[in-house]
Amino acid sequence: MRSIAFYGEAGAYTEQAAMQVFGTRAKYLPRTYISEVFSAVEGGVDCGVVPIENSIEGAVTQTYDQFVGARLYVTGEIILRINHCLIALPGVKIGSVRKVYSHPQALGQCRKYLEKLKVEAVPFYDTAGSVRMLKEEGLRDSAAIASAKAAEIYGMNIIARNIAQNKHNYTRFFIVSRKPAMKRGNKTSIIFTIKNYPGALYHALNAFAESKIDLTYIQSRPVQGQPWKYNFYADFRGDRGDEGVQKALMLLRKSTKYIRVLGSYRKAKQ
Amino acid sequence: MRSIAFYGEAGAYTEQAAMQVFGTRAKYLPRTYISEVFSAVEGGVDCGVVPIENSIEGAVTQTYDQFVGARLYVTGEIILRINHCLIALPGVKIGSVRKVYSHPQALGQCRKYLEKLKVEAVPFYDTAGSVRMLKEEGLRDSAAIASAKAAEIYGMNIIARNIAQNKHNYTRFFIVSRKPAMKRGNKTSIIFTIKNYPGALYHALNAFAESKIDLTYIQSRPVQGQPWKYNFYADFRGDRGDEGVQKALMLLRKSTKYIRVLGSYRKAKQ
Repeated sequence: MRSIAFYGEAGAYTEQAAMQVFGTRAKYLPRTYISEVFSAVEGGVDCGVVPIENSIEGAVTQTYDQFVGARLYVTGEIILRINHCLIALPGVKIGSVRKVYSHPQALGQCRKYLEKLKVEAVPFYDTAGSVRMLKEEGLRDSAAIASAKAAEIYGMNIIARNIAQNKHNYTRFFIVSRKPAMKRGNKTSIIFTIKNYPGALYHALNAFAESKIDLTYIQSRPVQGQPWKYNFYADFRGDRGDEGVQKALMLLRKSTKYIRVLGSYRKAKQ
Repeated sequence: MRSIAFYGEAGAYTEQAAMQVFGTRAKYLPRTYISEVFSAVEGGVDCGVVPIENSIEGAVTQTYDQFVGARLYVTGEIILRINHCLIALPGVKIGSVRKVYSHPQALGQCRKYLEKLKVEAVPFYDTAGSVRMLKEEGLRDSAAIASAKAAEIYGMNIIARNIAQNKHNYTRFFIVSRKPAMKRGNKTSIIFTIKNYPGALYHALNAFAESKIDLTYIQSRPVQGQPWKYNFYADFRGDRGDEGVQKALMLLRKSTKYIRVLGSYRKAKQ
C-alpha cells in the first residue's frame, strides 16, 4: 500500500486532493508543516501532496520556497474545487459566533463574508485542524472555515456553505516524489535564478519564445540573504524530453546562474 | 501640516518608513487594514504609506491587490532596514514565554528563532499592535515581535534584538497619492493584464527589451473570478515621460488588454 504525506489534518483539502489521485487504498500521513511533507518524502514516504496555488489568494509561497535546496521532483498536478463551509459545534447559532478560526488562505478567501458577519478572523495552521480544535476545546462562541468533509469527520454542524467571496475557488496541488515521473508529461515546472545584468530577466524569458514554448505561469520569490534578488518559478507546456523544451532549457542556461527542472507531469483537468 | 495615513499602529515599521520621508512635522494616521490606507487617501488624506515587499518574505500581496480598481498613484518608494525585537512586559523572562504574537510577515521572518525557542507563533494584525495588546491584557506568558520603537512607546522590555533568520532584512514601501509625482522619476511601476493567447506573456515582456528598458521586478497576482488568469506588476528603470519608456508602453499595449501606469518616482536608497 502506498504511503502519502499531506499538508494538514484528516479532512484537509490537501487530503481530498490526494484521494482524487490515490484513492482509498493508500496510507495517508497528515503533516503540520509543508516542510514536514518534504522531509517525509525525502525520508522514505512514497509521495507528498502540497498546495501550490489558489485561484483567489495566489501562490502558496511556503511551498515554492521549500523547493530551494530540496531534492524532490514534481510528478503530478491536482486541481480541487474548494467549497468553504462555516462550521461550529451542534446547536451553535450564527448570531453567537464571535471568532472564526481557519488557515490564513481560507480566511482571506472568505474575507468579505467575515466582514459582513462582523466576527474576528483568527489564523490557525490548518482548516480541518481548526474544526478539531473547536470540538476539543468545546468553544461555543467560535466557528471554523473548512470543508464539509472536515465537519463530517469531527461530527460538527455546517452553519453556511459556499462562503468564499468568489465561486470560482480552486486550489492547485503538486505531487512530489524522490524520482521524476516515469510517464511523459505535457507540462513542466522549473526554478531558475537569473544572472546579475540588466535585461537578464528578458533574456531568460526570451529562451521560451525562441523555442516556441508556451509559458503559462511565472512567480518570483526572494533569494534569502540577497535583498532584491529573486528565484523565478515557471510552468510551461511540454515534456522535458521534447525537442523545443530541450532547446529552451539550453538557451535559458545562458542567462541564468542556477536552473533546476522540478519535473514534467500531466496537466490537471479542472 | 501634511496628513499621512499608514498601515499599522504607532511604532509600526510603516510609520518609521513614513517618518524617514515626512519627518516629525506631519500628522500620522494609523490604519488597521491596507485597504483603509487607500480609502483614507481617496477620501482626502494627503498621502498613504504601505509595505509592498520584504526581502525575506517577498511581496505584500494585499497591497498589490489593492491597486486593482484603485485610482491612486505611486509617488515614492522607501526602503527601511527591519530590526525585529522580542518584546515582553517588564520582568518577564525568556523561559516563561509560551506564545509570541506578531504580524504573519514578522513571524515568518523570525520562524527559525521561534522554532528554537519552542513557542507558539500567534498571528496578529500588526507588529506594534501586538506589543500594545500584551500590555493592555497584561499577558506574562507571552511576547511580541516588533521594533525597538514599539517597545519604547508602550514602556515594554526588549528581551532579544535582531531575531530574524537573516540579517539582510529590508522592507520596501510605496507612498500613494491622488495625483502623480510632480518631479521626474528614475523608476516606474505598472500593472498589466495580458491578452489570452499563447506567448502573450513573452510578447508583453519583449516590449521592455525592444525598448532597452531594464525590468527590475515582476510579480503575478490572480485575477479575481478568473482562475489561472493573472495581473502582472512590473517595476523598471526610467520615468514615464522618457522616450524609451513611452515606446515600451506603446508596444506593451499590443499584447495586453489592460495596462495602468501606477507612477514614476525616485528609486529608494538602501
